[in-house]
Amino acid sequence: MSRATPGRRSDYKAFSTITTRWFDNDVYGHMNNTMHYQMFDTAVNGHLVAHDVLDFKAGDTVFLVVESGCRYFGEIAFPDVVTVGLRVVHLGKSSVRYEIGLFRNDEDDARAEGHFVHVNVDHITRRPRPINEAVRHVLQGLETR
Amino acid sequence: MSRATPGRRSDYKAFSTITTRWFDNDVYGHMNNTMHYQMFDTAVNGHLVAHDVLDFKAGDTVFLVVESGCRYFGEIAFPDVVTVGLRVVHLGKSSVRYEIGLFRNDEDDARAEGHFVHVNVDHITRRPRPINEAVRHVLQGLETR
Amino acid sequence: MSRATPGRRSDYKAFSTITTRWFDNDVYGHMNNTMHYQMFDTAVNGHLVAHDVLDFKAGDTVFLVVESGCRYFGEIAFPDVVTVGLRVVHLGKSSVRYEIGLFRNDEDDARAEGHFVHVNVDHITRRPRPINEAVRHVLQGLETR
Amino acid sequence: MSRATPGRRSDYKAFSTITTRWFDNDVYGHMNNTMHYQMFDTAVNGHLVAHDVLDFKAGDTVFLVVESGCRYFGEIAFPDVVTVGLRVVHLGKSSVRYEIGLFRNDEDDARAEGHFVHVNVDHITRRPRPINEAVRHVLQGLETR
Repeated sequence: MSRATPGRRSDYKAFSTITTRWFDNDVYGHMNNTMHYQMFDTAVNGHLVAHDVLDFKAGDTVFLVVESGCRYFGEIAFPDVVTVGLRVVHLGKSSVRYEIGLFRNDEDDARAEGHFVHVNVDHITRRPRPINEAVRHVLQGLETR
Repeated sequence: MSRATPGRRSDYKAFSTITTRWFDNDVYGHMNNTMHYQMFDTAVNGHLVAHDVLDFKAGDTVFLVVESGCRYFGEIAFPDVVTVGLRVVHLGKSSVRYEIGLFRNDEDDARAEGHFVHVNVDHITRRPRPINEAVRHVLQGLETR
Repeated sequence: MSRATPGRRSDYKAFSTITTRWFDNDVYGHMNNTMHYQMFDTAVNGHLVAHDVLDFKAGDTVFLVVESGCRYFGEIAFPDVVTVGLRVVHLGKSSVRYEIGLFRNDEDDARAEGHFVHVNVDHITRRPRPINEAVRHVLQGLETR
Repeated sequence: MSRATPGRRSDYKAFSTITTRWFDNDVYGHMNNTMHYQMFDTAVNGHLVAHDVLDFKAGDTVFLVVESGCRYFGEIAFPDVVTVGLRVVHLGKSSVRYEIGLFRNDEDDARAEGHFVHVNVDHITRRPRPINEAVRHVLQGLETR
């Protein structure tokens, strides 16, 4: 997140598609800055669900966000279609740092890039728990370098 | 909206696809009842935008919702993909009544069906204005006998 | 919901206050039609939570929305403050019909009025269950003649 | 944003109150991480609107978010009431960096703290414009030390 210029699709490891909605646009006629985070949330959790390592209703552990951030390089607006790029840049014992890029329609430069730090916690006590091997394997598949 | 049983895809005239998002799900683990209306809004306005008859930033007239409603027949939840069916059931001088069905993944029975009454108004005074011919033509294409 | 004119505060039995937010406003500079339903949801469930008859995390039964609707009489916009009026117009064995009015700032005529039909269901099977006495007592307190 | 411990109310200069809503809670029963940003947006723009220096419908310039971030120290959940603390930590020629703290009910330690970098841009061209004196005066009133 230190660079001033937007990343490209090739900087990311996994991709998903999110359709924009009428009410993503705010009074300025573009996607409100908070909707980017809803797309981050969707890409990150969607990747885990798709790989069968997140059971958000009945799992013993869940991932909670402890830090997030976004840089906005340009506008996205309904009815654009967004491709979300995902990568893992740090994988610790119980936490993981994702970076996410939002690509508008067919563009190769990200319109926005952000990060999410997830901590794996017990679903009841909300205390950190080690990330298990099945999840870790999926997250390693998102690592770059 | 009077029937107690869900409609089918063949009851609708135009279709669009909306991806669900992580935060469409509420505390009950399914799509919150208000998200259905965001999908209605997206399908209706998206159809007008796609047919080049709605300029929501610079148009002289805009459509405002004066009535809406929804019946929920079954749950939708992230990461489902929703197909939205659209039809026009009444087309007046300055207003139009849409009916909308939400179809989960490959299902043929609607999980929810609703309606939107749009009134065409002056973008400044918000007074009703006759629907012009270009828009009317697009809306007639959505009419079911 | 049959009248064409907005109701007044005196038509309702219980009231709560909801602050509007920047992103309640859509591209037309007023509260998007879907936000009214988020206010309905908040008032209805908030009333149950405040009266200690809804445990949305651990209760054996939960209320699901099977039908909703809204008529929009006038605009609400950030930074307005909304007073939400609530009443019960039908209380059945396992279902309840609420009507809700949204009042802008100090106004006495509703800017929007809607309804919610809630069905009490088992939290696992999602099958209807009779509304228990404690809940029924709270709902009766919202009934208008 | 560098400290690991939450700030206190006395670290902020201006305060506003935001009521939580039913659908702020996500599947984990607490306020979804994206709602914090909606509260940031509301506090920042609400302060400008309240001081008559933001006309989001007809102003020649508008503020766009170019960077945002949040650290989450603890959960907030409906039906909590949130007090939002606001301060300015950098005021440039055409940009301003806000920091925002979210305080749950009567608590003095922030449950979340974040930042927003706003750039003042021409409402048409979206090119940066110097922040005018009236706005600057309001922002200076939010500066700490």
